[in-house]
Amino acid sequence: MIERLFTNARLPDGRTATLAVSGGRFIRIGSVDPSERAAEAIDLGGRVVLPGFVDGHIHLDKSFVGDCWRPHRPAATLRERLAVEKALLKDARPIAERASALIARAAAFGTIAMRCHVDVDATVGLENLHGVMEARDRWRGLVDIELVAFPQAGILACPGTREFLDAAIMEGAAVIGGIDPSALDIDAAAHLDIVFGIADRRGAKVDIHLHEPGMHGIEQLLRIADRTRALGLGGRVVVSHAYALGDVDSATVDRTAATLAAAGVAIMTNAPGDRAFPPILRLRAAGVHVFSGNDNIRDAWWPYGNGDMLQRAMLIGYRSGFYTDNDLLTALAMATCDGALALGIEDYGLGVGREATFIAVDAQNAAAAVAEVPAGRMVVRRGALMQDWQIF
Amino acid sequence: MIERLFTNARLPDGRTATLAVSGGRFIRIGSVDPSERAAEAIDLGGRVVLPGFVDGHIHLDKSFVGDCWRPHRPAATLRERLAVEKALLKDARPIAERASALIARAAAFGTIAMRCHVDVDATVGLENLHGVMEARDRWRGLVDIELVAFPQAGILACPGTREFLDAAIMEGAAVIGGIDPSALDIDAAAHLDIVFGIADRRGAKVDIHLHEPGMHGIEQLLRIADRTRALGLGGRVVVSHAYALGDVDSATVDRTAATLAAAGVAIMTNAPGDRAFPPILRLRAAGVHVFSGNDNIRDAWWPYGNGDMLQRAMLIGYRSGFYTDNDLLTALAMATCDGALALGIEDYGLGVGREATFIAVDAQNAAAAVAEVPAGRMVVRRGALMQDWQIF
Repeated sequence: MIERLFTNARLPDGRTATLAVSGGRFIRIGSVDPSERAAEAIDLGGRVVLPGFVDGHIHLDKSFVGDCWRPHRPAATLRERLAVEKALLKDARPIAERASALIARAAAFGTIAMRCHVDVDATVGLENLHGVMEARDRWRGLVDIELVAFPQAGILACPGTREFLDAAIMEGAAVIGGIDPSALDIDAAAHLDIVFGIADRRGAKVDIHLHEPGMHGIEQLLRIADRTRALGLGGRVVVSHAYALGDVDSATVDRTAATLAAAGVAIMTNAPGDRAFPPILRLRAAGVHVFSGNDNIRDAWWPYGNGDMLQRAMLIGYRSGFYTDNDLLTALAMATCDGALALGIEDYGLGVGREATFIAVDAQNAAAAVAEVPAGRMVVRRGALMQDWQIF
Repeated sequence: MIERLFTNARLPDGRTATLAVSGGRFIRIGSVDPSERAAEAIDLGGRVVLPGFVDGHIHLDKSFVGDCWRPHRPAATLRERLAVEKALLKDARPIAERASALIARAAAFGTIAMRCHVDVDATVGLENLHGVMEARDRWRGLVDIELVAFPQAGILACPGTREFLDAAIMEGAAVIGGIDPSALDIDAAAHLDIVFGIADRRGAKVDIHLHEPGMHGIEQLLRIADRTRALGLGGRVVVSHAYALGDVDSATVDRTAATLAAAGVAIMTNAPGDRAFPPILRLRAAGVHVFSGNDNIRDAWWPYGNGDMLQRAMLIGYRSGFYTDNDLLTALAMATCDGALALGIEDYGLGVGREATFIAVDAQNAAAAVAEVPAGRMVVRRGALMQDWQIF
């Protein structure tokens, strides 16, 4: 007997279907013989089902979600911004509490996995990492969280950081981070030596924040591609933001994209509101893997964000001029399957035999869901409705 | 005795307050003597109260809300786009039905007034106007709708349109529209002669769509300012979009802004996602009145939009780099009081003696509400909760 039927679903393309689930897995998607019995049936009321959302870039240790509203304070330089952040976070609730509150929100929107960049440097040591790990443990099995040891203030610029980064990987961060190699640490080669050295030695993945503009940024992208190729790390290296790809002419984009694709370097963009960012379709056409994440959510860096990857998909489309159904589905893929691939999540997606995890929203099809971002969500992980999850 | 108390409210700045309402008006805002009796008390549960949302630019006759999802079809030219639109609308439900469905959605988000541009030309005549008027009548007293007779396909370019525009004003459209005077009708002076001629003769207000880029667009803005000054129409003329102000250098923006401010020409922007648009703070600093609207909502032009002006305020801030509370409140003002002023709505806002109309959302203050866009809304018009409105 089937354990649970989800009836009256719409598939992403709008066709009506029934989802049959047993042992936490999809055992049939499409039509189910009415004579077949099920222990339980849940009516999805014509909602469209989407695969679980994957937030490919989030900073759980910085957010004030779960804390009080902290008005944004302007800062003229990165150093000033870091000082403001430190001051604001000093009065905030513990990291594990805040991180858990934000995970709860994201989970309610339908996020099932995240890549979380956590500040690791000589001033905070592994404190943020331990706080986020505590929150991660609370959510284990419901939201899968991959950790990045992130040197927010640079590595060479903040002596002692290198050792903490290495320690963070040894303690379970799966990804070694980096940031603006030539702008922040000046000596880009030395910065990348450390990042790729740890990756090579510890078997870690790489995810580097790159805000450097124009041709400076392109230069870093090419360096990162070089290192990736040299160490055989293709498919395990991400550059987050890569604003430079939004600044340069199309020929330079195409040349750089070909190099990134050949090396297996992926790009993460959150589609920022007031800055040029990578031309998504152009990169994808060149074979570059591109995915998305929410990035900062209501923290010292900016006040926006609510943790919803469906809203993020809409913003990606809104900022990229995605109007056709095909383009809307590209934005959705960046918030779902393309993120899952970047994070190495297997057993993902709406398919028979896969983990029965999906989000149901009130829309006629998946493209419409991206354009409209319906507020209400039914979230199902391994066959169980979210309200039945033990954490709630 | 007080008719109704709304307790446990937060004012936009975050302070706790009670709102006392009688005869559909605020009779006290702040603290209410506990000995004072009220016929009814409604607990707002710490929600922040915002003034009713004003959508300063919407196209109710075009939207497919209340109809089925119509995938976007690319079009190379404006003529092609208009042909696609005509084809898609031919199969859609009647205008009055679709318009009413969209008004219902916007009302549930908290919109209490709109300026609606309605296609009026020699091909559709007054058909769209009559459809929207039917929807407007259904919502009378709950959502106030000001109509613009909008020559979407140009005036000279579509012979016979001029007479229909004039007839639309005679039938009750309060605003005469226009569009891209030099790009669409070629003879900009002749286009503006007709628009301003009708405004002058019929006492109508003016709201002109201007997509012309760069210095071409600036030229039109200066022409429109000239006409406004010459006819003494200051405060009654709006240019919608005015993309050109996002294309030119700051000195040109400042010069043009000074002319617009002196003439009393306001600017409406919806903060488009993938195109430069007017620099809001710079225009406001020069004294230009700037407000917002949702513009197209899920129609043949694009798939985005849900009718929510709080989401629009967020998008304005997101696109404009508004991070501080002050800037977030500017975005909110553009979706509330500044729109009300542009539409000539009196008796507006959270003030003793004013109409008791407000939206309550789950946020710590108004700035936080803009950044987060909480989904749940309590909407109160003239002291009555929306669920008690007769139309529901």
